[in-house]
Amino acid sequence: MPDPSATRPLRVTVWNENVHETTEPEIAARYPEGIHGAVASAIAEHHGDAVTVRTATLAEPEHGLTEEVLAATDVLVWWGHIAHDRVADEVAERVQRHVLAGMGFVPLHSAHWSKPFVRLMGTTCTLNWRNAEDRELVWTVAPGHPVAAGVPSPVVIDRQEMYGEPFDVPQPDELVFISSFSGGEVFRSGCAYRRGSGRIFYFSPGDQDYPVYDHPDVRRVIANAVAWTAPTGERRPPELRRRETGWFEAPGQPGGESR
Amino acid sequence: MPDPSATRPLRVTVWNENVHETTEPEIAARYPEGIHGAVASAIAEHHGDAVTVRTATLAEPEHGLTEEVLAATDVLVWWGHIAHDRVADEVAERVQRHVLAGMGFVPLHSAHWSKPFVRLMGTTCTLNWRNAEDRELVWTVAPGHPVAAGVPSPVVIDRQEMYGEPFDVPQPDELVFISSFSGGEVFRSGCAYRRGSGRIFYFSPGDQDYPVYDHPDVRRVIANAVAWTAPTGERRPPELRRRETGWFEAPGQPGGESR
Amino acid sequence: MPDPSATRPLRVTVWNENVHETTEPEIAARYPEGIHGAVASAIAEHHGDAVTVRTATLAEPEHGLTEEVLAATDVLVWWGHIAHDRVADEVAERVQRHVLAGMGFVPLHSAHWSKPFVRLMGTTCTLNWRNAEDRELVWTVAPGHPVAAGVPSPVVIDRQEMYGEPFDVPQPDELVFISSFSGGEVFRSGCAYRRGSGRIFYFSPGDQDYPVYDHPDVRRVIANAVAWTAPTGERRPPELRRRETGWFEAPGQPGGESR
Amino acid sequence: MPDPSATRPLRVTVWNENVHETTEPEIAARYPEGIHGAVASAIAEHHGDAVTVRTATLAEPEHGLTEEVLAATDVLVWWGHIAHDRVADEVAERVQRHVLAGMGFVPLHSAHWSKPFVRLMGTTCTLNWRNAEDRELVWTVAPGHPVAAGVPSPVVIDRQEMYGEPFDVPQPDELVFISSFSGGEVFRSGCAYRRGSGRIFYFSPGDQDYPVYDHPDVRRVIANAVAWTAPTGERRPPELRRRETGWFEAPGQPGGESR
Repeated sequence: MPDPSATRPLRVTVWNENVHETTEPEIAARYPEGIHGAVASAIAEHHGDAVTVRTATLAEPEHGLTEEVLAATDVLVWWGHIAHDRVADEVAERVQRHVLAGMGFVPLHSAHWSKPFVRLMGTTCTLNWRNAEDRELVWTVAPGHPVAAGVPSPVVIDRQEMYGEPFDVPQPDELVFISSFSGGEVFRSGCAYRRGSGRIFYFSPGDQDYPVYDHPDVRRVIANAVAWTAPTGERRPPELRRRETGWFEAPGQPGGESR
Repeated sequence: MPDPSATRPLRVTVWNENVHETTEPEIAARYPEGIHGAVASAIAEHHGDAVTVRTATLAEPEHGLTEEVLAATDVLVWWGHIAHDRVADEVAERVQRHVLAGMGFVPLHSAHWSKPFVRLMGTTCTLNWRNAEDRELVWTVAPGHPVAAGVPSPVVIDRQEMYGEPFDVPQPDELVFISSFSGGEVFRSGCAYRRGSGRIFYFSPGDQDYPVYDHPDVRRVIANAVAWTAPTGERRPPELRRRETGWFEAPGQPGGESR
Repeated sequence: MPDPSATRPLRVTVWNENVHETTEPEIAARYPEGIHGAVASAIAEHHGDAVTVRTATLAEPEHGLTEEVLAATDVLVWWGHIAHDRVADEVAERVQRHVLAGMGFVPLHSAHWSKPFVRLMGTTCTLNWRNAEDRELVWTVAPGHPVAAGVPSPVVIDRQEMYGEPFDVPQPDELVFISSFSGGEVFRSGCAYRRGSGRIFYFSPGDQDYPVYDHPDVRRVIANAVAWTAPTGERRPPELRRRETGWFEAPGQPGGESR
Repeated sequence: MPDPSATRPLRVTVWNENVHETTEPEIAARYPEGIHGAVASAIAEHHGDAVTVRTATLAEPEHGLTEEVLAATDVLVWWGHIAHDRVADEVAERVQRHVLAGMGFVPLHSAHWSKPFVRLMGTTCTLNWRNAEDRELVWTVAPGHPVAAGVPSPVVIDRQEMYGEPFDVPQPDELVFISSFSGGEVFRSGCAYRRGSGRIFYFSPGDQDYPVYDHPDVRRVIANAVAWTAPTGERRPPELRRRETGWFEAPGQPGGESR
């Protein structure tokens, strides 16, 4: 749970490109509130008054992710698929900067190839895939991890897109879930990273073609990931600093401000 | 490949409890030279004159692992299953000590529960299992890793015991392989660790009930693991040392010997 | 902060060998309530009613760490130095088992060589040392980590025993603090590990010969470490389990109980 | 040592912005062959005929790093400081792509802020610094690591720029060296990363204002790092691939090419 000792609720922004839902009736029918709506409802369902959840989409000015919005966001959840290239580099850089300064970041499913995630990883973030109604089993490999709390192992997802290894990401700081698919492939489906002062949790289950975001265990993992990536301190970007000799003994001197 | 610039071949010892083969005709027929013989032949096949391979078994005095033998072993490969408890604690401690001083260690399959591996990991090393002729697929998740060199992804093993998560080990320093089984389970089947000055590579495929050690890809991985765990320097156990102030500027002084 | 949504306070046990304090007047004067008393007061000071803190010492039956005590302990803090060998192997094994089942563990300073920590690491846990009134500077290298929250970087400790590399432990899952000493040595002084379902935080500052446990920043780190190692779920030891094919689809079947 | 079983020498390219040396007489006098010349000589000195070393600089067309040059480079060493911004994004992206496909990469000292390294890390790569003739001590914390082979611990560098924590990089896959400075700061000075199919070793000692690249131990570390980052297989960029069900059983089918 988000820390209730905080003076305000955790502020979550769920971002979605919202293209499938606005152009494909079948997908619009599957997610009548949009994928962002489904994801937002999962977070609200689990955290209640301890969070405030808002959404933002690609079509909005600056994709709804202005400096002001990000500065007021504790955790950003991201869903994108066919419109990664339409995200402005400037916005992707802004998201990256806020994550490194402490904002939590939860990229979901095809967001493995989103600009902010790829920039934060430094790798290609490529993988193998197949859209053929595989059954996905999500196994917990880190039983004590907070993101896995209250989640059965395996989570059984009856129909799902296959994501398979090699998944070209840095080795996760903590590997929490590994999935298998009925076709035999495996995938590191729950990957925790610390970058700068921020935390990232990539979670792969979820797709526009299957009602995965209605799955109760998937919804719980997303809510857990939001809590786990929540920042523990003040937002502050890492920076290059010149330091005088002995600066830490004389905090008032130039070049000696303490952190 | 082992470093040919060395003045002598890499010295490999393959240890096997050798109980199944000496008490169960069917298994003796599967591995006429013992599992140790099959594993030793895989290493010799791939490394030729660059290695010397000997074997040792539980029934020998001190299980064939005297201080002298271990001091003359660069890499120790270990197979055990039903007789873990019959390994003397003193010998297990000796193996652990040599690994921490730099000896390579390659525990195979059911050696996940061997005394030396459990001592080196510090965890229970428990897992889920089933002996029901599952097909195992071994996927490479670290494509650039030397242990995966020349190995297809996936390796297809038609019949195999299932080992499944949770596998209670420390997160590997490098996770190289993940397996899936036809029953749907997943397992971190190739795990690289550095402990003290030594390297450890745990590789799970292989079993007394299936001819897995005849599989060409499994044989190659074992040979690769031997090369990867080979020590890079002199055998030297880590030790507690008192140091004088400024010892590194006066290597000749008491408490100032350099390493 | 410990999670206030829990129905009861976090139960902390501070263990101390309590030998210096009972045999050396100077040390007894420095820590009139014992080192365990000083450490316990740091935890109580920061967490208040959110924790209950008790202490246990070597001289008690079973060193005060019976099965009942450990089963009722969420986080165990450990201090030992000259009496490591007097800790019964059975008790050390019991502590290890509880940590792997989820109990938090915070070994302090010379507890790097305590039996439970050495068993959990699997390495020698040796290091370099010198008792010569070095100044220690404790630098945060993981700014976003909860254990570093509210702590300046560096923490300045005017007089302290030197602990130097090489520190023979597995690479930490998260390296939080690195110390330097006025003699020039460095030490990984704050090391976070996950083992089994439990969390471990080793923190090196603190000594019987210096009043380090009165230092406000050291006290805060210890309190933070207690919160960070607090278990997130039910205590449950990892175990070996046989599983039927498809067990996860039929939880009621033998071999198919879900976790 | 590079693997002599290879049919050709290891091909190393040392890149240097070469601005200080061509604009500041004092630095030109310190490094008459340029910093690239000093670094190249260190590699040649240690590896002899097992390597071929060429150099490239900022002023050349495409900074001397055309697609052809990189395709024929096994390991790229990088030095830059005041002209990071003058490196074309296209070249930085090209270097990143080759590293992910398997080329070794050894950024030195102020290359912590070079475009290729920052892109590969995904973080700000900022740090604290001071140019005040600190003494740097480089301590080995991973005694068995090949990059530390033959290097004393500590390496003593009499005069050096201070680089201090927090160093905003992902936690290294292997932390090999930690430095302390006479001013009291610490720095993770030897950081090993695996990214894609490539390996990266960042090593911080070395500066234009001090003759650090003449230091025999620094030269050895650089040579070791070149050997350690050398690729183990064919250059191949990670890629997104669609896979048919059962593709691994029918390698000849579309979507079923094996890797």
